Amino acid sequence: MSFDQIRLDKHEGIALLTLHRPDRMNAFTTGMMLEAVAALDECDADDAVRAVIFTGSGDRAFCAGADLGSGASTFDYDKRTDKLATLPDGASASPIRADSSIDWSHPLVRDSGGRLSLRIFEAKKPVLGAINGAAVGIGATMTLPMDARLASETARYGFVFARRGIVPEAASSWFLPRLVGIANAVDLCYSGRLISAEEARDKGLVQSVHAPGALIDAAIAKAREMTADSAPVSVALTRHMLWRMMGAPHPIQAHRWDSRVIFSRGRSPDAAEGVTSFLEKRPPNFTASVANDYPWFDEFEESPPYS
Amino acid sequence: MSFDQIRLDKHEGIALLTLHRPDRMNAFTTGMMLEAVAALDECDADDAVRAVIFTGSGDRAFCAGADLGSGASTFDYDKRTDKLATLPDGASASPIRADSSIDWSHPLVRDSGGRLSLRIFEAKKPVLGAINGAAVGIGATMTLPMDARLASETARYGFVFARRGIVPEAASSWFLPRLVGIANAVDLCYSGRLISAEEARDKGLVQSVHAPGALIDAAIAKAREMTADSAPVSVALTRHMLWRMMGAPHPIQAHRWDSRVIFSRGRSPDAAEGVTSFLEKRPPNFTASVANDYPWFDEFEESPPYS
Amino acid sequence: MSFDQIRLDKHEGIALLTLHRPDRMNAFTTGMMLEAVAALDECDADDAVRAVIFTGSGDRAFCAGADLGSGASTFDYDKRTDKLATLPDGASASPIRADSSIDWSHPLVRDSGGRLSLRIFEAKKPVLGAINGAAVGIGATMTLPMDARLASETARYGFVFARRGIVPEAASSWFLPRLVGIANAVDLCYSGRLISAEEARDKGLVQSVHAPGALIDAAIAKAREMTADSAPVSVALTRHMLWRMMGAPHPIQAHRWDSRVIFSRGRSPDAAEGVTSFLEKRPPNFTASVANDYPWFDEFEESPPYS
Repeated sequence: MSFDQIRLDKHEGIALLTLHRPDRMNAFTTGMMLEAVAALDECDADDAVRAVIFTGSGDRAFCAGADLGSGASTFDYDKRTDKLATLPDGASASPIRADSSIDWSHPLVRDSGGRLSLRIFEAKKPVLGAINGAAVGIGATMTLPMDARLASETARYGFVFARRGIVPEAASSWFLPRLVGIANAVDLCYSGRLISAEEARDKGLVQSVHAPGALIDAAIAKAREMTADSAPVSVALTRHMLWRMMGAPHPIQAHRWDSRVIFSRGRSPDAAEGVTSFLEKRPPNFTASVANDYPWFDEFEESPPYS
Repeated sequence: MSFDQIRLDKHEGIALLTLHRPDRMNAFTTGMMLEAVAALDECDADDAVRAVIFTGSGDRAFCAGADLGSGASTFDYDKRTDKLATLPDGASASPIRADSSIDWSHPLVRDSGGRLSLRIFEAKKPVLGAINGAAVGIGATMTLPMDARLASETARYGFVFARRGIVPEAASSWFLPRLVGIANAVDLCYSGRLISAEEARDKGLVQSVHAPGALIDAAIAKAREMTADSAPVSVALTRHMLWRMMGAPHPIQAHRWDSRVIFSRGRSPDAAEGVTSFLEKRPPNFTASVANDYPWFDEFEESPPYS
Repeated sequence: MSFDQIRLDKHEGIALLTLHRPDRMNAFTTGMMLEAVAALDECDADDAVRAVIFTGSGDRAFCAGADLGSGASTFDYDKRTDKLATLPDGASASPIRADSSIDWSHPLVRDSGGRLSLRIFEAKKPVLGAINGAAVGIGATMTLPMDARLASETARYGFVFARRGIVPEAASSWFLPRLVGIANAVDLCYSGRLISAEEARDKGLVQSVHAPGALIDAAIAKAREMTADSAPVSVALTRHMLWRMMGAPHPIQAHRWDSRVIFSRGRSPDAAEGVTSFLEKRPPNFTASVANDYPWFDEFEESPPYS
């Protein structure tokens, strides 16, 4: 697949996904979202990819937020002149009915930032952010479902939504309090102020800060550390379990999943290799494939604990 | 409305709500709770108020906890001599039935601290605490649903419930682990020990510590920072979303709300002004009214994600 | 009751539960799990016990994880030669049906680590960990539902599951993100790397680090601080409420419990003694018994808020 608004480069087990609209500070569009989702689909299906790193083109911005090229109607999705291009075949042209009520199930009524952040949430490989410059609006919120955010010293974070007359999106109201605590989350989102990479690190939003020239190498090193000695299917399942159980009401839900997954993976060749290689003091050689062998939770759950 | 056990002073966009029983270290009563709830109702309905700051009269206490003037029967609500004054018309005099069983739906069986903390949870404006002295029992737990807690160097926090033979209330078992982590929450609540402002800050319970004479100005400055450049309706919705989604099981629930709110607010004059003012590099002039235009979630949800 | 794989020593209100397989680095077995569960049952029923401290025999390990003595079939519970010994009477010999499908309700399909961690979660006394050496695999995850983890300078933590081809268990996907945040949780569980006591403390996994010879005394001091001035039934209820409400979707659930528990405990002799002793400036003398008077939530809830 070829991409227009992003770049996807795979090298030695790492996929580098670059938001690539350098003349627009990598501003977010529906097209960029669809391409990023497709790139994640491709990475999940490719066993040669062990981790995905998001970054931005150039040295000014990771992603400056929604493209404001439509001016005052930027967030008025029903009035956007480009809206027809994003509608699926057969959809009516507007969610506004003749009586002025809103058809909330219409495809124009769906936050496109959330479609990307939920896709990252579902990823089967670790996803890291190499935040090379300004991360503003959706440029900030899209990074929250990632497993780690590494920032350049020149990076800035801004949850500017209330300054634009809208609200935090991309499911950030779910992710942000869990990453930085509710006191930091409300402070950042009410004020909409920009914060430095250092402040973002002190608040737990960013895991580490690097010189601009060292950022990508640091992200690659972290991605390798996360995956080098670990079974790919184990990492995929672990990712699924930790991110979901962070929100589950009661630990019995984790126990139900654990029991089925441990029994299932315990019978796998990966578990035999994991123990044998440890006892033989040699690196493991795991063979199960995320693309082909991944036991999605349909296998384990007749009635999922929540929907 | 006039108040007896609190003071409410509005000045340049900030409402200062002072717990005012200085001869009793601002100890909590049902009357104080009802007045504080009424004051929050008034602030939510007044567009001139952008934020609310709670503090206490005098320099000894923010709030020393439940008024222990009833001695050993303080927490025995059925035996309190003043119980009839708090009962609504038509309620039976006691939740204890003839067969000694308890009518759990009786109005005397309702934690009054929780009525205040849940009202703060529902506030449409940022609520801050300027903790000017001892914050003990309900004086500690009522501050947990606030957006920020700023403390005087002389402040003390104490979750003393287990030392009094009762348990943490005001829904603090929900709020406290989310603010300070479960390890700190259990430590503070099992022991009931008092901690200094500095320890409270190190644990994340308090956001900043100030000289006593600088506390109120610091709280006002933080409240202004939170609201100065932000649309009032956006702040109200953001507050609603962040506090609720902090407890939601799955990010899809945030995505459903985001989609409807972003579509709705994206069509508003505030969103047009937010983008236009940014592009014109001037301060925004938001016009939507929390009192009149606030799109409570009834508008967005036929079936709310949880009740 | 006598124990084989653990030791249980009670002294001046503290029960010391020692994982005791020193020749196997205290490696975990189903037998050890059943004994630890029985020891917790005994401690909950003994009013002389105010807190429980877990530690490990010797100075090398707290618990080195699952016993790998079965080699490559360690985690293949259906192939383990010792499986029949763990099956209850009347259970079929295997969860694998003739058509190769799995009977997920079979007793062999249940994570034994989770049986211990959920029992700790239900404990009526504070449970502390004195982590005297390596805490690896189930040796790490069993400590997560404890109220505090104190570590020797020589301790190491390792969530090594993905390196063994399996996944984190013992409901750790629920506990770990709540203790250390999701960013640390995924980092530790994807990589499976071992971390020092100091790193564990910096991440919030461990509350304090001590010289090896001072560890047990520090844990005893912390356990005493948690319980010395507090009513035992209040501590038990507080433990129940804080750990459960940490996962509850909405604070109204805490308010419902608070209301019933405060009304019930407010009528108890402990509440009268708590207030009276405070007003008389003397230590309290609480008399309610966890063993006999503990108002389990059946009393308060006809329909529990979640199951």
